[in-house]
Amino acid sequence: LYSGEVKKCTLIPGDGIGPEISAAVQKIFECAKVPIEWESVDVTPVRGPDGKFGIPQAAIDSVNRNKIGLKGPLMTPVGKGHRSLNLALRKEFNLYANVRPCKSLEGYKTLYDHVDVVTIRENTEGEYSGIEHEIVDGVVQSIKLITEDASIRVAEFAFQYAKENNRHKVTAVHKANIMRMSDGLFLRCCRDMAKKYPEVKFEEKYLDTVCLNMVQDPLQYDVLVMPNLYGDILSDMCAGLVGGLGLTPSGNIGLNGALFESVHGTAPDIAGKDLANPTALLLSAVMMLRYMGLNSHADKIADACYATIREAKFLTGDLGGKAKCSEFTNEICDKVMKS
Amino acid sequence: LYSGEVKKCTLIPGDGIGPEISAAVQKIFECAKVPIEWESVDVTPVRGPDGKFGIPQAAIDSVNRNKIGLKGPLMTPVGKGHRSLNLALRKEFNLYANVRPCKSLEGYKTLYDHVDVVTIRENTEGEYSGIEHEIVDGVVQSIKLITEDASIRVAEFAFQYAKENNRHKVTAVHKANIMRMSDGLFLRCCRDMAKKYPEVKFEEKYLDTVCLNMVQDPLQYDVLVMPNLYGDILSDMCAGLVGGLGLTPSGNIGLNGALFESVHGTAPDIAGKDLANPTALLLSAVMMLRYMGLNSHADKIADACYATIREAKFLTGDLGGKAKCSEFTNEICDKVMKS
Ligand SMILES: CC(C)[C@H](C(=O)O)[C@@H](O)C(=O)O
Ligand SMILES: CC(C)[C@H](C(=O)O)[C@@H](O)C(=O)O
Repeated sequence: LYSGEVKKCTLIPGDGIGPEISAAVQKIFECAKVPIEWESVDVTPVRGPDGKFGIPQAAIDSVNRNKIGLKGPLMTPVGKGHRSLNLALRKEFNLYANVRPCKSLEGYKTLYDHVDVVTIRENTEGEYSGIEHEIVDGVVQSIKLITEDASIRVAEFAFQYAKENNRHKVTAVHKANIMRMSDGLFLRCCRDMAKKYPEVKFEEKYLDTVCLNMVQDPLQYDVLVMPNLYGDILSDMCAGLVGGLGLTPSGNIGLNGALFESVHGTAPDIAGKDLANPTALLLSAVMMLRYMGLNSHADKIADACYATIREAKFLTGDLGGKAKCSEFTNEICDKVMKS
Repeated sequence: LYSGEVKKCTLIPGDGIGPEISAAVQKIFECAKVPIEWESVDVTPVRGPDGKFGIPQAAIDSVNRNKIGLKGPLMTPVGKGHRSLNLALRKEFNLYANVRPCKSLEGYKTLYDHVDVVTIRENTEGEYSGIEHEIVDGVVQSIKLITEDASIRVAEFAFQYAKENNRHKVTAVHKANIMRMSDGLFLRCCRDMAKKYPEVKFEEKYLDTVCLNMVQDPLQYDVLVMPNLYGDILSDMCAGLVGGLGLTPSGNIGLNGALFESVHGTAPDIAGKDLANPTALLLSAVMMLRYMGLNSHADKIADACYATIREAKFLTGDLGGKAKCSEFTNEICDKVMKS
């Protein structure tokens, strides 16, 4: 797709440890000679002509122009009325599918081995509609919005993802026994889509059942597709199985572009101290490369990252090691250049 | 409370393995000389004068009279329009708090040791309001309803439970960063209630964070209180940590009565074969005894059940043993009578 030409990518380094881990990714990309030019932008909200705070126009223009971006962790603005910046970005660019692969890392021991699941989360509606009212004093309703369009779109994404990545099964996760109409609609869209992908196995499971099974035997799952909130929950839970948000990548896919991000926090306590682990952002960047068709670069970097963790000579503190972010990064660079 | 007199309890044996495990509980209660008389009722829906299916009046009357019941698993009626019988019962008796203690059983090995958490779930509203509309073709809304009354009620229950059971912390689980008004209201009610229980520690956590932490380090949690759907998810997940729904009890507490139940399925494949494990129902019955103030009977039965599992001589198939339900039951009876 992009081979031969140098592609511009928007980079949102983010807050706290964001700049350090972004620099680590940039360095590794350089070592791997990835044909990418970064366009770094700041998304700290600015007050617009209407008096409201919003993402700076320059940042929006950059993503719209490049149609691809990598993003570090963002601080949630303090004070009432500020919606999460992460949500604002998903909305601004209509990033309808959130993809989070959770795979056990060889050498990093957790209670679970060989986990390999991918959550695909509807990313634009559901419980995140933002529509709420106080009907009378002390009685509030929040609206969960499920549309056929968004459900079909994310269902199609899930099956297409499964097919392209040689995954064998898609599980639709729902509570249609309770929310018969909304989750029912979502489920019907998944069922219909399943018919178009006979090569991919399809099953339906209740959310509570999936949560129970997931802690007992995660190996029974492969690709999971679900409404927004369920994805928020399950993706974090699955990340927990393999070591947490510091190790798991994430991609937000839209019609006109995609934004890859690490979903851990800004870790202000260690920010600026060269102690952060760049793995989640690096693996997100690897997802980005695959999305761009730069598979051999992606493989090279992923392999070097996995090997560095497996060999455990240069691990950052969160992984039980004593290496600095820069040492971990250098080790990956060395491996990339040798490969 | 009830000592000295024989108290009547409604028993809903349920479907599938329900009758066998109910008989097991009855037998153990007899051996323990629990001063209880069972009133067995059938809740299979019947068609009322209005043509609609509903819980038989005799069953409703029994629970209303006795104000306490024990319930085995119920089959979900087949066919559209049938709401879950479990939900119908919660609604009929206004059972506002669902309590599920999940405690590691000594001798039954899972990936987690020493888990000891209690989920307290708002049981009447939230995502379970049942209010849904199709606004236009392909656009559905489901309403999550949060009221101050129900939130205060369940928050109070949680703190009172923590206090009475010598638990040190209550965690309110929410997504008030997304559902600011509804989960915000729930959270405020918990915060306010916390002030009335200074002896109990209080903390607030996002649902996704709790899910992540729970699979990594469940020991950091104690009592958790949350809106309906979050409780559905977390209680199943916590049950998974300690061995599944076959081992964990559940109580639904209302203003005018309480219904204790095992929340596993009817297991039609093994029904009638004397193979089922009665533990979840038995431990639910133990919760019921404590609720009634029959603590010494409760202790005796619980200890016998735990010891039987720990000694592992008479385990049912689901626990890796070869014992029949009746053998497991007899062993508990023997221990109860010797104690
Ligand atoms: C930060 C928060 C608004 C967000 C969400 O709830 O979606 C986060 O938990 C995530 O999963 O990206
Ligand atoms: C059977 C189902 C309706 C129920 C629920 O969703 O509440 C179950 O999962 C539970 O937790 O009791």
